[in-house]
Amino acid sequence: MPPDIFFAGPGLDRADALRGQPDEIAALAASPTARQLEWEFGLPAIDEQGRLRWGPVTDPELFLGLDGDEPRFSVIGPEAGDLRAQFNLLGHLSATEAPVFAAATSLASWHRRHGFCASCGAPSEIHRGGWGRRCTRCGTEHFPRVDPVVIMLAEHEGRVLLGRQPRFPPQRYSALAGFVEVGESLEAAVARELFEEAGVRAHSVRYVGSQPWPFPSSLMVACTALVDDPALVVDTTELEDARWFTRDDVAAALAGEDAASFVAPPPFAIAHSLLAHWLAA
Amino acid sequence: MPPDIFFAGPGLDRADALRGQPDEIAALAASPTARQLEWEFGLPAIDEQGRLRWGPVTDPELFLGLDGDEPRFSVIGPEAGDLRAQFNLLGHLSATEAPVFAAATSLASWHRRHGFCASCGAPSEIHRGGWGRRCTRCGTEHFPRVDPVVIMLAEHEGRVLLGRQPRFPPQRYSALAGFVEVGESLEAAVARELFEEAGVRAHSVRYVGSQPWPFPSSLMVACTALVDDPALVVDTTELEDARWFTRDDVAAALAGEDAASFVAPPPFAIAHSLLAHWLAA
Ligand SMILES: [Zn+2]
Ligand SMILES: [Zn+2]
Repeated sequence: MPPDIFFAGPGLDRADALRGQPDEIAALAASPTARQLEWEFGLPAIDEQGRLRWGPVTDPELFLGLDGDEPRFSVIGPEAGDLRAQFNLLGHLSATEAPVFAAATSLASWHRRHGFCASCGAPSEIHRGGWGRRCTRCGTEHFPRVDPVVIMLAEHEGRVLLGRQPRFPPQRYSALAGFVEVGESLEAAVARELFEEAGVRAHSVRYVGSQPWPFPSSLMVACTALVDDPALVVDTTELEDARWFTRDDVAAALAGEDAASFVAPPPFAIAHSLLAHWLAA
Repeated sequence: MPPDIFFAGPGLDRADALRGQPDEIAALAASPTARQLEWEFGLPAIDEQGRLRWGPVTDPELFLGLDGDEPRFSVIGPEAGDLRAQFNLLGHLSATEAPVFAAATSLASWHRRHGFCASCGAPSEIHRGGWGRRCTRCGTEHFPRVDPVVIMLAEHEGRVLLGRQPRFPPQRYSALAGFVEVGESLEAAVARELFEEAGVRAHSVRYVGSQPWPFPSSLMVACTALVDDPALVVDTTELEDARWFTRDDVAAALAGEDAASFVAPPPFAIAHSLLAHWLAA
């Protein structure tokens, strides 16, 4: 049974076939049911019920898709400010709206950071309803990046390996993670990262679930793997600490008990879903 | 049991910790055991035994990693020519060497197409032993793209859905596929692509395996999914045809039988592994 994962729902109908038709998109933007996403603190704005806030269409830079037959647009919102403060907002975001929040956040961030053609250096312009950019000089098309990241629980005799980055809140431990590189399968990336960060040799990698993570545009792929020799060699340039935790440790942390041996990642993080999945298995 | 997948092996020790140390990399390039990948026809050169061809180090632009303790480098090879002809080469490439071929091909291709900073338009330069580029003006670091792609078999009552693109060789049918977008989980991408390309509503998506595909730098993620209503609405801008095939059809095609109802994708394609996995399940 795959776990419940925040940000991973269906979201809007992306209406891909319309993206290549600028006249159609302009007509949709002028429709009375069209709405434009509002932005606040460098992120899509959330109301008190945790729902996205929509207003009148003034600047339909990004065609997010259709909600039923109602068109949804966004501007390329401003640069995010303090991410820590924004993560607090995520705790209030409705799970149903989260996929739309993720798509808008990633898409806007990509446009902000990709105003020029990587192939020739000339300015590029918005293309395909915001789902691409095109070079104004050489015509090369550029598409939004999605960066796959593996995040994994290594297991040894009923315990799981968790690590702590220096930037984490006090007592927080989470699953190890790292970017997948070119020429690498997900399974190879899991084994490489576990060896680089913790010095363990992993095998029997199993897929658990995936999550789009919009800061700025990762695709988190959660896995488990088995380790025969639990001796750790922690890469202290990446991690402050890494340790093996028992099922009781994990259960107490997920329940938020005061006496828990560590603080679990928040429910909107796939590491939380991965720990809950492992505990239930 | 995960299927055997070409390009998906462990490859070289990528020695990530060395990439940030230019003096160490220069010393490795000068070592008597160092070798540089040779290129031919716009791809890493393959000898008659299907092994990569290595020569003396003359221009160590890309530090591919370590083979045991022997350093391996590559130049940023030339642009690939006719891909169709090159795919014929893949049939001869040793499975053990394939991950190194994939990493070098993707990395060189990324450098060729990313000579400028997407953030400010200035020229960028090689960085971190070839595993990044850095802007000569604003200092922004850029990292090689890995583009996740879902490739999937929809199943309905013991049959699987395969499609045919106009550019395919005669009679070839393969699994449907498409790029994962920002704000989208793998599972959501599978459902979206099956609906966009074939008009079917899929559920119960299951992961099968992954493959780095170096033309230029996809991460293929193979899945199965279930479909309740088999009625097809084929997107003829993407596909020439799509149909449901029986287990007997698939078995005959994978066996290369003359009387098979379609021609299967080649063994180095993950679609082949996915079909074999489905047939064995
Ligand atoms: Zn250009
Ligand atoms: Zn720059």
